[in-house]
Amino acid sequence: MYREEIKVLDCTIRDGGLINKHGFDHDFVREVYKAISAAGVDYIELGYKNSKELFSSDEFGPWKFCDDDVINNVIDGIESNAKISVMVDVGRVKLEDVKPADDSPVDVIRTAAYVKDIDKAIHMTNHFADKGYETAINIMAISRDRGPELDEALQQIEKESQADVVNIVDSFGSLYQENIESLVKRFQTHLKTKEIGFHGHNSMQLAFSNTIEAIIHNANYMDATIYGIGRGSGNCPLELLIGFLKNPKYDIRPILDLISKEFIPLREQMEWGYIIPYAISGMLNEHPKAAIALRDSEHKENYKDFYDSLTEIG
Amino acid sequence: MYREEIKVLDCTIRDGGLINKHGFDHDFVREVYKAISAAGVDYIELGYKNSKELFSSDEFGPWKFCDDDVINNVIDGIESNAKISVMVDVGRVKLEDVKPADDSPVDVIRTAAYVKDIDKAIHMTNHFADKGYETAINIMAISRDRGPELDEALQQIEKESQADVVNIVDSFGSLYQENIESLVKRFQTHLKTKEIGFHGHNSMQLAFSNTIEAIIHNANYMDATIYGIGRGSGNCPLELLIGFLKNPKYDIRPILDLISKEFIPLREQMEWGYIIPYAISGMLNEHPKAAIALRDSEHKENYKDFYDSLTEIG
Repeated sequence: MYREEIKVLDCTIRDGGLINKHGFDHDFVREVYKAISAAGVDYIELGYKNSKELFSSDEFGPWKFCDDDVINNVIDGIESNAKISVMVDVGRVKLEDVKPADDSPVDVIRTAAYVKDIDKAIHMTNHFADKGYETAINIMAISRDRGPELDEALQQIEKESQADVVNIVDSFGSLYQENIESLVKRFQTHLKTKEIGFHGHNSMQLAFSNTIEAIIHNANYMDATIYGIGRGSGNCPLELLIGFLKNPKYDIRPILDLISKEFIPLREQMEWGYIIPYAISGMLNEHPKAAIALRDSEHKENYKDFYDSLTEIG
Repeated sequence: MYREEIKVLDCTIRDGGLINKHGFDHDFVREVYKAISAAGVDYIELGYKNSKELFSSDEFGPWKFCDDDVINNVIDGIESNAKISVMVDVGRVKLEDVKPADDSPVDVIRTAAYVKDIDKAIHMTNHFADKGYETAINIMAISRDRGPELDEALQQIEKESQADVVNIVDSFGSLYQENIESLVKRFQTHLKTKEIGFHGHNSMQLAFSNTIEAIIHNANYMDATIYGIGRGSGNCPLELLIGFLKNPKYDIRPILDLISKEFIPLREQMEWGYIIPYAISGMLNEHPKAAIALRDSEHKENYKDFYDSLTEIG
C-alpha cells in the first residue's frame, strides 16, 4: 500500500506509559525518539499534558505532564522530522498552562473525549488551534457509542471545530474489520474537511488488520506503537504497519534494532500483548478494567470464571 | 457472524506437533480432545499419517503416524461429535497402510500439496474418498503460487477430484485481507462443487482477521488451534474464532479452561506466537525456515541483521 497522504503516529511512550504511570526514563525515551526519527515516522506522541493540580508528580512520571523543558531535554541534538504530539483528556488540563505553539517543542495536541463530552473537546481543540497547534479529536469507546449521538457529534465537529484530524478509537478492542469499514464510511459522510484516523487495541489480535482496513477505506492517520506496547493487549505494532506501507520514506530497520535491544528485555518486566482476559473483554465489548483487575489478582489465569463473571445474567 | 454452513477444524495437535516432532503425550491429547468435543468444534486433526518406512518412530512421536489403535486409545470413552482428521503429505504415505474408513476412527483425510503436485494430490484424494473418507486438498505456499498454474490446478481439482473441501493455506503468513478476498473469489470461480477453507499463519498477527475475511467472502471451512499454538508464529486462535462465530453449538468455556490449565504452562516450554523474525519472513513473503534457524541460534534476537540478510541484493 502506497498513498502519500498516509501518516503514522507512534504513541509508544504515551500509550506504553499507561502501564508504568508514565515513568519511562530519560535515556529510554531518547532512544525511542532517535529510532522513530531515523525510521521516518511522521509523529511521535510522548504523553499527556495533565494539570499538576490534579495529579501528583510524586505518583506519576514526567510523561503524565509533558513539561516543555522535559521534552526539549529528551530531543536535544537528535536530527528529526517527526512532529511531537501530546494528548489531553477533557477536564484534566489547565488551558492557560499551554504555551503558544511557537514557544513550545510540541507541534500537535490531541484531545481524547467520549461522545458525550464532544462540546468540551471542541472548545479545547479550538483553543489549541488558536495557539498555533495542529489538533485532533480522539473519540474514545466508539464501540459503545454508535447510535445517532455519534452522527450529531461528528456533524458538530465538522461545523464548529478547527480539528485537523478526527480519530476512531477502539478503546475496548472489540471492533472487527466490518465495523471499521462502516465507521470510516460514517465519519467520511460527516467530516468533509477533516482527515480521519484510527487507533486500535489488540485484544483480539485485530489492531493491525483493523488499521489496514481503515487505510483501505481511505483513512489516512494511523496510530501504532513499537512492538505493540500499550496497556493490556497493547496496540498496532509499528513494525508491522511500516512493513505494510510501501512509502520509501519509512525505514523499518531502526525499529527492529530497538526492539532487539530495549523492548525484548522490557517485555520481561512489563506485561502487554495477547492475554486471554483482554481477548475476552474485547469479544464481549467490555472496558478492559475488569481484565486489568484480574491480572493484578491471584486468579490471573482463571479465564473460565472470568468469562462467566462477565456473562452472567444478574 | 452466524452461518450454519461454517465448520471449524481444530488442528492443535497436528500443527502444534510440528514444534515437538509430534510428541504430545497421551494425557495431553486426551484433554485437548475432551475440550474440543465439549466446545462443539466440528473437526479435530491429530497429526500426519506418514509411512514408518520413511520416518523413524525413534525420532518422531506417535502423531507423526497416527496409528488407528493410538487414536482409539486416546478418544476412548469420551463423548464427542467431533470428526477426526489426519493430514498426509504427497509422497510420504503408503496408500495401502490406510484402512477403509469403516474400520478406522479417522473420518477425514486432508492431503497437503504444492500447486506443482496437484496431480498426485488428486490421485491420493480419490483413493481416500474411494475408501469412504471425507477428503480435502490443502494448497500450500499459495502466496508464491498465484500465477495461471493456480487456475489450472483448481480447474483440475474441480473436474478430476472427489475432494469435498479445498483449503487455501497461507504457509508463509504473508497474506493481507485484500489477498484473501481475491483468492477466495478465484477459488469460487473454479470450484463450483467444492467447499472452500482457509488455514492461516499468524506471522503478522493476521491469522484471525484473514479467517474472518475468508468467512465474509463465503468460505466455510476454517482451521484454528487452541491459544494459536503452531510452528513459528502459530495459527488462528480457536478461542477468538469461536468468540466471533455466533453459532450456539459452540461453547468457548472448555477451551478457556484448558488454556489456563495446560497451554499457559506449555508456552513456558515451547515457543510460538508473535516473534519478530517470523513477522519479517511474513512481510517479505519468505518461507519461515530462515526464521526457525535464527531462533535456534545464539543470534536469535538480532532482528536487524536478519532483515538485512533476507533483503540484500546479491
